Amino acid sequence: MNGIFLTLEGGEGCGKTTQLERVAEALRASSGREIVTARSPGGTAVAEKIRDILKKPETGEDLLPETELMLFGACHAQMCEHMIRPALARGAVVISDRFTDSTLVYQGCARRIAPETVARVNDFVCRGTRPDLVIVLDIPVELGLRRAKGRDAGAKQDDRFDSAPVAFHTAVRNGFLELARRDPGRFAVIDASPSEEQVTRSILEAIHARLAIL
Amino acid sequence: MNGIFLTLEGGEGCGKTTQLERVAEALRASSGREIVTARSPGGTAVAEKIRDILKKPETGEDLLPETELMLFGACHAQMCEHMIRPALARGAVVISDRFTDSTLVYQGCARRIAPETVARVNDFVCRGTRPDLVIVLDIPVELGLRRAKGRDAGAKQDDRFDSAPVAFHTAVRNGFLELARRDPGRFAVIDASPSEEQVTRSILEAIHARLAIL
Repeated sequence: MNGIFLTLEGGEGCGKTTQLERVAEALRASSGREIVTARSPGGTAVAEKIRDILKKPETGEDLLPETELMLFGACHAQMCEHMIRPALARGAVVISDRFTDSTLVYQGCARRIAPETVARVNDFVCRGTRPDLVIVLDIPVELGLRRAKGRDAGAKQDDRFDSAPVAFHTAVRNGFLELARRDPGRFAVIDASPSEEQVTRSILEAIHARLAIL
Repeated sequence: MNGIFLTLEGGEGCGKTTQLERVAEALRASSGREIVTARSPGGTAVAEKIRDILKKPETGEDLLPETELMLFGACHAQMCEHMIRPALARGAVVISDRFTDSTLVYQGCARRIAPETVARVNDFVCRGTRPDLVIVLDIPVELGLRRAKGRDAGAKQDDRFDSAPVAFHTAVRNGFLELARRDPGRFAVIDASPSEEQVTRSILEAIHARLAIL
């Protein structure tokens, strides 16, 4: 049995992390298949170390866009080899909170690295492993940032990407929508403004519609 | 005044690290210029964190060649931006223990990533910053490995690259010699078998011959 690789993508405050857990739980109950959850950057011991550098540079040293791209590339190489491909080979459904489409959008559209360069790095590090379905959780930038702010109210440290200016988050949103427009067979855009329950239903509907096997 | 960027390259046990200190000391005494020493991977706070992942994966997780290339790329981006370019702008002489030619040789020739791919990553992350002169310290593989073994006898942990098989180190040696053959104007190959003093003299002669400004 072949595995299935799903990713949840979207800007800050779109609810990816919450939805990932809800969707994983629903699929565990309904599909009878092994469900593996992942997150980018992260998911293996090495990738989590790299995540710390990307997310919390307590060194105070600015990361160049080139550095970000390289570090995400390193994470994705390790994730594919040590987590995603073995799970797919077992026939599991892998659901990742972000993956290479985030790199295209954040480092490409938003940090202005040439999209061909980002795409080439993504292809190189993944050795052909790519999502069967990319769910984009779409939300107006202001609403997403308000939600992210509420979520992080108790957190000690700002996430580097959350604290970027609104123009950055607008570029991110437009970037995901543009990717979906160009590859509609592999992307599904879901309105992430409604209630958690409604968004989970929409995601599950999209999965069932696209991947009959579930 | 423009800075000068020198690198010392070569396989295990060729004496790069010792020679870097000796050459830096000699140039400090003779040139009247600011001498900045660096090492790859490393040299900035972020690059040193990445170095730890590359050199001592206490996680037990194998690093893919692609991951190594990405991590070296990230290091070099940070080194160039936060260390090398500012030093060159001040008119300093920067001497680095390894740099992008090691990536070409280790990840390209030895780990078998396509050399064009490694070169493209190197160019991308360095934004045009490249060594004015690359000193290759050349030594027969067996002698280099014996020297490295003696050096590390008291160390607790093996360096991942030191412990690779002899065929790997042979590919590394041949890789450096091939780079030097293809770009003789920018490379100088120095026989690293003689005494430390003799090797230092040879390096300084090469620097004076190639870079009249010193």
